Amino acid sequence: MTRIVIDAMGSDEFPTPDVVGAVMAAREYNIGIILVGDEAKIRPVLEAQNPGNLPISIVHAPEMLTMEDKGMALVLKARRANAKNSMAIGIDLVKNGEADAFVTAGNTGAAMTTAYFRLGMIPGVDKPALAVIFPTATGSCVVLDVGANPDVKPENLHQFAIMGSIYAEKVRGIQSPKIGLVSNGEEEGKGNELIRNALPLIKNTGLNFFGNVEGKEVIGGKVDVAVTDGFTGNVMLKSSEAVAKLIIDKIKEAVKTGGPLALIGGALLKPALGEIKKLLDPSEEGAGSLLGVNGLVFIGHGRSDALAIKNAVRVANNAVKANVLGAIRNDIATRLKKSAE
Amino acid sequence: MTRIVIDAMGSDEFPTPDVVGAVMAAREYNIGIILVGDEAKIRPVLEAQNPGNLPISIVHAPEMLTMEDKGMALVLKARRANAKNSMAIGIDLVKNGEADAFVTAGNTGAAMTTAYFRLGMIPGVDKPALAVIFPTATGSCVVLDVGANPDVKPENLHQFAIMGSIYAEKVRGIQSPKIGLVSNGEEEGKGNELIRNALPLIKNTGLNFFGNVEGKEVIGGKVDVAVTDGFTGNVMLKSSEAVAKLIIDKIKEAVKTGGPLALIGGALLKPALGEIKKLLDPSEEGAGSLLGVNGLVFIGHGRSDALAIKNAVRVANNAVKANVLGAIRNDIATRLKKSAE
Repeated sequence: MTRIVIDAMGSDEFPTPDVVGAVMAAREYNIGIILVGDEAKIRPVLEAQNPGNLPISIVHAPEMLTMEDKGMALVLKARRANAKNSMAIGIDLVKNGEADAFVTAGNTGAAMTTAYFRLGMIPGVDKPALAVIFPTATGSCVVLDVGANPDVKPENLHQFAIMGSIYAEKVRGIQSPKIGLVSNGEEEGKGNELIRNALPLIKNTGLNFFGNVEGKEVIGGKVDVAVTDGFTGNVMLKSSEAVAKLIIDKIKEAVKTGGPLALIGGALLKPALGEIKKLLDPSEEGAGSLLGVNGLVFIGHGRSDALAIKNAVRVANNAVKANVLGAIRNDIATRLKKSAE
Repeated sequence: MTRIVIDAMGSDEFPTPDVVGAVMAAREYNIGIILVGDEAKIRPVLEAQNPGNLPISIVHAPEMLTMEDKGMALVLKARRANAKNSMAIGIDLVKNGEADAFVTAGNTGAAMTTAYFRLGMIPGVDKPALAVIFPTATGSCVVLDVGANPDVKPENLHQFAIMGSIYAEKVRGIQSPKIGLVSNGEEEGKGNELIRNALPLIKNTGLNFFGNVEGKEVIGGKVDVAVTDGFTGNVMLKSSEAVAKLIIDKIKEAVKTGGPLALIGGALLKPALGEIKKLLDPSEEGAGSLLGVNGLVFIGHGRSDALAIKNAVRVANNAVKANVLGAIRNDIATRLKKSAE
């Protein structure tokens, strides 16, 4: 049975959404759940959900990492052998083979740092990448890196392309995924120095490489994977979210202040607009995947509700079942060798 | 009287939108217009608009730059002393004091390259930046650079911040504009190497510096100017446009396929949705401004219609009246000196 560790101290409203979402996931996906965090806080929330015989256990962690944890102090907490925070204890369960994946809605930087130091990297991968799913006109696109590393080299983007291709194939079931390199223009030769040097590396890896892509190709659904550095990817993600929010807010405002006809119009369009909100709702995908570290780690939004946590566990469970980790371990060496030939 | 040169060979549908928009602008803003391009093509379109005594003249340019012009061949065309293309001839009119600003809806790269080589840079500015207006929750934000330079140094971002501040103050009438530095997190210390090194420079310039900003601050209207490199800014712009288009398309689709009630809802909401489309319509702002070159140059979307051209001329006219060029020439040296103290 697949066993997923959930950081019960992760979300902004911890531990309720985390624990309730975990119970929902255990019920729905027939998997084992390990809740890690302050047992005294977790237990009453768990009991209130009537978990019965569900395979849910608690591993006590007396400390937690918060948004205040950063810089060198965070590195020290992330590395300490006998760390007592929920992320370190949870990730160690994955490292020691007692669980298959770790899910948290806590501080993204803290989760990435803890995972990096405790799990180490898959041989052949130099830096991790946070991969998220963007909604597109035709479905979705895996975008990576959206924030693990603001400064990378062309070789890192090369590795991200390989990992993203494997992820899209294994977890999203896309045969020979189309890979795009995010740039400021589609033509070969466009891009900053990083992109101009990364393109030939990715092109020669035997991947299904589409070429440089702009926002319209990514959002328009022309590629299955969009490769970028963690700085650009983060700006892209945050701007896209902000624009989507602005439009949705403006529509709501227009409905509210547009008089009785607009109110009726809004009511009649509600089911349709609901679909669009769902498309843009981060809780639908639940979590990003930290690829490259030597273990499966999924990081959700701090404002995750129980549904988002449940969906994050679904994503993690799919990655376990598809053996994404094994595939990256096997393929990265082969792919890198192929491109060096 | 202000005289604006318009590249009649600029837009995708040239010369009709360019010439018709120019006539609209001459009528509405009481300014002189010089149309530059193929006279045989321009003349009939102009006559069809019954320009009467409007101060519109034509300067013949037998050649034009297209989307095919790039790389070293473009550089050579942009620099050639006796260049015969409409961009070079039009920009020379500004350089020689025969006109106050140049407006084109042609190839952005060609316009920037031609302006750079023919006008040169304002002393103290090392690289130009293309500044555009983003719609925000509370109004608008000047974002620069969105594509002039994919590779820049911290000093360039510093200069962009100063130019953006002057532009927002002079053209948009914002006293002491709030300046944000686009990054992957708000805290000082966030960012890639470029951003981490640019922040202290901008902070010490006596500008109203807000700090690092993410998409939600830019789109949320927390700053008046957002400073970024041309690679990141371009990805941000294109992704934002693509997300906006996706949502508008999904709403249209929902209205069309949602049955009779959705159709009625869509009809009732039409005025409200129209406002949102207007907010997101590039033709409202008309053109981006190429700041840093020693002359006023405005570059619009290739798909500009006559209204977009007219609005581009309005933006150019406002910049002339506000003496943006003089302000940048004067202030850049003072500001840079202040930050070096």
